Amino acid sequence: MARASVAMIGASADAPAHEARMRIRAGRYDGQTAGLAPGYLQGNLAILPGDLALDFARYCQRNPKPCPLVGVSDSGDPMLRTLGADIDIRTDVPRYNVYRNGELADQPGDIIDLWRDDFVAFVLGCSFSFEQALLDEGVPLRHIETGATVAVYVTDIATTPAGPFRGPMVVSMRPLVPADAIKAVEVTSRFPAAHGAPVHLGDPAAIGIADLSRPDWGDAPDIRTGEIPVFWACGVTPQVAIRAARPSICITHKPGSMLITDLASTQASNQPGRAMPSAQGRT
Amino acid sequence: MARASVAMIGASADAPAHEARMRIRAGRYDGQTAGLAPGYLQGNLAILPGDLALDFARYCQRNPKPCPLVGVSDSGDPMLRTLGADIDIRTDVPRYNVYRNGELADQPGDIIDLWRDDFVAFVLGCSFSFEQALLDEGVPLRHIETGATVAVYVTDIATTPAGPFRGPMVVSMRPLVPADAIKAVEVTSRFPAAHGAPVHLGDPAAIGIADLSRPDWGDAPDIRTGEIPVFWACGVTPQVAIRAARPSICITHKPGSMLITDLASTQASNQPGRAMPSAQGRT
Repeated sequence: MARASVAMIGASADAPAHEARMRIRAGRYDGQTAGLAPGYLQGNLAILPGDLALDFARYCQRNPKPCPLVGVSDSGDPMLRTLGADIDIRTDVPRYNVYRNGELADQPGDIIDLWRDDFVAFVLGCSFSFEQALLDEGVPLRHIETGATVAVYVTDIATTPAGPFRGPMVVSMRPLVPADAIKAVEVTSRFPAAHGAPVHLGDPAAIGIADLSRPDWGDAPDIRTGEIPVFWACGVTPQVAIRAARPSICITHKPGSMLITDLASTQASNQPGRAMPSAQGRT
Repeated sequence: MARASVAMIGASADAPAHEARMRIRAGRYDGQTAGLAPGYLQGNLAILPGDLALDFARYCQRNPKPCPLVGVSDSGDPMLRTLGADIDIRTDVPRYNVYRNGELADQPGDIIDLWRDDFVAFVLGCSFSFEQALLDEGVPLRHIETGATVAVYVTDIATTPAGPFRGPMVVSMRPLVPADAIKAVEVTSRFPAAHGAPVHLGDPAAIGIADLSRPDWGDAPDIRTGEIPVFWACGVTPQVAIRAARPSICITHKPGSMLITDLASTQASNQPGRAMPSAQGRT
């Protein structure tokens, strides 16, 4: 934490994240963001019309594990001032999903023409931060080793609704030997803004998952002898809740193409949504 | 945590908090809530008109240390469904402060006649949870030992504004010997929904406090040889920000007369705003 803070104070030190966003803004990159600007916090995006913004803020407050809010724009302001210098949410994500009445309608490279003066942009923490911390602590992650997409499942755990936002908790699963599962609980507990500690481990049926070999999203997992499944709340949860709410329009990042912020990825620990002093000073 | 969870599952186990609220609701208690229903999370209250609710939610998201949001009502709904069974925010706080255009206008025992269908009630974590945890860990708290009110100061640290909500961070100070200051950092870090780790320790001038012997609120502190001042973000911060916003109406608890929830006070650790399963099931 201390090291990251020192590394990021002052505008020039924000260069890697800023540079990546400038490439994206200029239309020179529209792919996945994993591995871009290492050490900087990446986030999921949901842009909603003003009349749904308070309910969505409430949904996130009531369901902090699947929906860890790290930043909220001012209404109609496309600049995400608490997440860094010069972040324009209309252009700085590689590719967007535009949903109309809950259905995917378009996948543009920017949303300049779609932006409205009542829009509110929500940025939510993602699992990148805690996965890096797990690897740093020597906890192996099979899906990363094998180049697979993490397995994601719908559970029978209901989230706490807010207005039209409601639905099941969606979880990602990583198979671990018990000693690593214990270490993973310790490590991810320190990252409440990146889904925090697991929500379950062991018997999948206990949370309504009938067959681990058939995930709802991602690749079928490779679970080896002696390993138990460990389940974390997943950022697909708010996407399902938004789909259920069928807003006239909602814009998200295209999965895998996240927003890169100026915050340290370790920022996802301890205090959700706390900006670096350099970012704070600019608001 | 485990013990508290077990103790609270099922309606009858909520009895101490529920019973205290029923006494308050019936008008049979209008005093301080410290010591009432031990083990249950108490919170600060701010009720705002609908047109300011999204900005205030943003203000809390951007300033989680002074403004740790533990619950938000639905618009116009006086029942705080995520914080417990049968919590009516119009009657269940011992005494209220009613502010009109930023000025204290009344201190009624209930707000039934003032409630509007656009009101949103915000409940914020307070320092009771972490003070109990400090005492449990053997960290002595002078103001409690001497029956004084904790010393509270305005700093020169600016909070991150949201709409009309802005102002300095306000802090509470507890004098501790260095070994206890270290322990206090460790313990309070685990309570992000109760202001979390300190924001400063040592030199008061570094955060704009000219004279520790003259607090802005509370009693002059008794600092002894070998002790250093340790400063935590304080729930007066959002009150100052609300005052600055001069809303046509805002209703808070009268200082010291908090809302008693059905959540375990240890709930203030780890995941802000996460309700007990028993409370969740009722939403």
